[in-house]
Amino acid sequence: MTVRSRIATGVAAIAFCAIATPVLAGPAEDKLIAQLLDEGLNRSDAMEIASELMDRIGPRLTNSENHRKAEDWAAAKFAAFGLKNIHREPFEFGLGWNLKSYSATMTSPRTLPLTVLPVAWSPATGGPITAPVIVAPMSKVENFDAWKGKLAGKIVLVSLPGETSESKDPVFERLSGEDMGKLDKYTLPRHDPEGLAMQVARRGFARKLSEFLKAEGALAMVKMTYRDGKLVHGEGYDFIPGQTLAVPTMDMAQEDYRRLVRLAKTGAAPQLSLSIDASFDDKDLMADNVIAEIPGTDPKAGYVMAGAHFDSWIAGDGASDNGAGSVAVIEAARLLSKMGVKPKRTIRFALWSGEEQGLLGSKAYIEQHLATRPVDPSLKGIDSYAAWRNAYPITPKPEYSQLKAYFNMDNGSGKFRGIYAEGNVGAAPLLREWLSPFNSLGADRVVMSKTGGTDHVYLQAIGLPGYQFIQDPLDYESRVHHSSLDTLDHMRADDMRQASVILAGMLLQAAMSDKELPRSPLPTQPDATDPFKVQDPNQ
Amino acid sequence: MTVRSRIATGVAAIAFCAIATPVLAGPAEDKLIAQLLDEGLNRSDAMEIASELMDRIGPRLTNSENHRKAEDWAAAKFAAFGLKNIHREPFEFGLGWNLKSYSATMTSPRTLPLTVLPVAWSPATGGPITAPVIVAPMSKVENFDAWKGKLAGKIVLVSLPGETSESKDPVFERLSGEDMGKLDKYTLPRHDPEGLAMQVARRGFARKLSEFLKAEGALAMVKMTYRDGKLVHGEGYDFIPGQTLAVPTMDMAQEDYRRLVRLAKTGAAPQLSLSIDASFDDKDLMADNVIAEIPGTDPKAGYVMAGAHFDSWIAGDGASDNGAGSVAVIEAARLLSKMGVKPKRTIRFALWSGEEQGLLGSKAYIEQHLATRPVDPSLKGIDSYAAWRNAYPITPKPEYSQLKAYFNMDNGSGKFRGIYAEGNVGAAPLLREWLSPFNSLGADRVVMSKTGGTDHVYLQAIGLPGYQFIQDPLDYESRVHHSSLDTLDHMRADDMRQASVILAGMLLQAAMSDKELPRSPLPTQPDATDPFKVQDPNQ
Repeated sequence: MTVRSRIATGVAAIAFCAIATPVLAGPAEDKLIAQLLDEGLNRSDAMEIASELMDRIGPRLTNSENHRKAEDWAAAKFAAFGLKNIHREPFEFGLGWNLKSYSATMTSPRTLPLTVLPVAWSPATGGPITAPVIVAPMSKVENFDAWKGKLAGKIVLVSLPGETSESKDPVFERLSGEDMGKLDKYTLPRHDPEGLAMQVARRGFARKLSEFLKAEGALAMVKMTYRDGKLVHGEGYDFIPGQTLAVPTMDMAQEDYRRLVRLAKTGAAPQLSLSIDASFDDKDLMADNVIAEIPGTDPKAGYVMAGAHFDSWIAGDGASDNGAGSVAVIEAARLLSKMGVKPKRTIRFALWSGEEQGLLGSKAYIEQHLATRPVDPSLKGIDSYAAWRNAYPITPKPEYSQLKAYFNMDNGSGKFRGIYAEGNVGAAPLLREWLSPFNSLGADRVVMSKTGGTDHVYLQAIGLPGYQFIQDPLDYESRVHHSSLDTLDHMRADDMRQASVILAGMLLQAAMSDKELPRSPLPTQPDATDPFKVQDPNQ
Repeated sequence: MTVRSRIATGVAAIAFCAIATPVLAGPAEDKLIAQLLDEGLNRSDAMEIASELMDRIGPRLTNSENHRKAEDWAAAKFAAFGLKNIHREPFEFGLGWNLKSYSATMTSPRTLPLTVLPVAWSPATGGPITAPVIVAPMSKVENFDAWKGKLAGKIVLVSLPGETSESKDPVFERLSGEDMGKLDKYTLPRHDPEGLAMQVARRGFARKLSEFLKAEGALAMVKMTYRDGKLVHGEGYDFIPGQTLAVPTMDMAQEDYRRLVRLAKTGAAPQLSLSIDASFDDKDLMADNVIAEIPGTDPKAGYVMAGAHFDSWIAGDGASDNGAGSVAVIEAARLLSKMGVKPKRTIRFALWSGEEQGLLGSKAYIEQHLATRPVDPSLKGIDSYAAWRNAYPITPKPEYSQLKAYFNMDNGSGKFRGIYAEGNVGAAPLLREWLSPFNSLGADRVVMSKTGGTDHVYLQAIGLPGYQFIQDPLDYESRVHHSSLDTLDHMRADDMRQASVILAGMLLQAAMSDKELPRSPLPTQPDATDPFKVQDPNQ
């Protein structure tokens, strides 16, 4: 009853705002939505699931022991909920890497523990390294010459310390109506092949730098992290066998890094003692996506899917990125299974791996199930990321026509405020209809903006209906994303149960509907390039 | 020339705003101000001094080895600048405490380093303590009974985990004109003896709790820190011999503390390994203020003084609290000495100790130089804090009439925007006059508000002219104050040179002026109490 009146209120609000034209579902579906809201809002398991994953298992670097432990846990969860066809889908990735412990202390001019995190896939130190620092900022290969002959026996601080920040933005945010209005814009297509190439080249630089340091006899590399407030991040992209970083590498908090720079400038070089106890694992170079299903009643009706990447970085517990999305997928599966839904279409749940290293898990799924693109098979890891996006022709597989809708969650743990139509104007009315039962929960916008950076991107890139939700920002971008603060404390229980319910509701309607989301045309060439763009030859 | 035009601009701005009635000083003083601005803004040493103090020496807990090292450094600085009568003034304090190292790791259900800081004057652990946690929130003695017999062999988590924060405020702030307008209010006197007594009682609770834990056979006490974002604080008030905490005590980051609470609630108690390597020092129970002077030319004209507390907590490097104030005092001394000023009145510079434990250094200075109050001499440390404020009669000493002005800096490292007249309406015109040369540097307000919590308070309490400045907040209150972020990175070079110059300028004018700041009447009884206040018998 409470639930019915919430929906009614939502409808009234929409009529007033003239934002949407709700098309109410039939009585059977209406009853299922009411049941879902009751189950998911009154008896949510989202935060218990989240605590098992984040607090008890912790961060899940792709192909680490912890990621495999989490896969076992997720498969067991799906089984306990009664899902079917639970399995892993392996894909070629690279080395596993398991971090056991680490530390960094300044030992001179005074003793001080420093806030650091090893960079993922850094070599171990083999016990403590104690040595003086040298401040040698290098951001491109052309900088190397200036430091030749000066780095032997040193711990090298390779970042330019720069200026401290004076951000006037609030740490924690929820979207206003005005904020959401700004998201509703159709973005003209723009192809930026140089930009993508530069991004890949930048990521390759760390390895070149580490090889230069090793050749010079340096002992370790220290980077300054990119947020202040004693946060550390530790992203690393060098996980292909034979292509890992050449020297132990750490990310250091800005406050600690800049103190070392100032001390080095005004007196004898400070001494550090660093240690990283970590091990590579080359026994299994495959990473795994985890898949589970609620089977559909009509084998010819195709399937709908929800997905979230399950892997995380090593900072924090991988809570908002992307434990939150994973929990919503798992809780949605629990809710729909508990409700005993018998959807026309199969509902598939996917927990992707390798997202942080270039959407590698969802790309592998596409290659295995949906379509192939002619990419040089010698390109591995991050190098395959940009290449795949720009390879033509796209060759659909038989399953291409079967995937009717994909909903992704990976914008932190804030509640859903609406959905991005990704520039597909024709899809907006149906997205609006499916969202309408949840308008009164705060999710009432369908906006045209395109979004990037997560696992719906490669689906969109081949014309498939992959969508994600507008979410309240909370403190995700300001301090949590990829940082040591990415713990359960920065998730919100109310937001998580709302998101889980809406994700389940969108899946349910997409699986039951007589209608299908219109697809974009299969792309045959890159998006429009700017014919008047003059390339900077110095870039 | 640039300097002259800056002043002219400032004057024009004031005339336009009708905020102040500037009374320009005579040509001689005007020239000195121009010289001060040139020296202090173009050739500031503030940040080099700050780096020596914060980066190289580090935090300065009252009566610690590091505080003594900093005293030696400050005395040497004053000597190098050519100041006179450089000396320490010892006062009765309590135990020294020196922290060598510490660590905290969760060892079960998984291995995870935790962000902690020992509470100042905590006993050492004597090697690692490894034990399960118990979550036993206690905030008053009445809570103890519920936990009797349950704490033996445990690491006790004594804080209620509470809710996570959702602050909408920006981290970093500068004051707008509107903000400053709100500070300009005359506060009606209000005496709150119960409030003060409760504050003292609350601080005493940690020791009672630790004694209960020890009697129960608990191994250590862990408190949750009061800000999120993985900040830690570690304030401690139990430094009197025979009255220190009974068990090793740590402050733990909210994110780590709440994770332990959730794990304890959903499974076997997590195990921690804690260690604190620290030592008490009872060889010298006296702490020291450091004093230096630029002698005046007229021995009968009295003296003016600038002061800042030199002691800090152990979190961070004691930069904004109160390295900043200390640096401004030292840089002001350097500037005035380098300019070769010959002031009529002596200019005294004071670096107080023991401020963080109850304004103990400045109180001692008052007792030694200015006035006494009849306080029970058995009250030590924090217990003497509230007692001293409320003891009557006040008996002035001969030097009472000699102190003509005191300027304190202890509101972080933000630039000066004006000065608080502390409710002394009669003093405002002269403060406004002395501030007028600096109006164009952003310091243009004289406001009526009273301020508290630092070393001018006890001077104001006995009717003496102790003032402090309105400062831009920066990120001081939001995250830096008493936290692990209190490092040099959160100070701003431009702000520090502005503040140092204005502090020097105020001192100079106060030392040269023919006028004196009017004093408040010598108090003979507490401020007005509210005759209609009904005390809550349950408090």
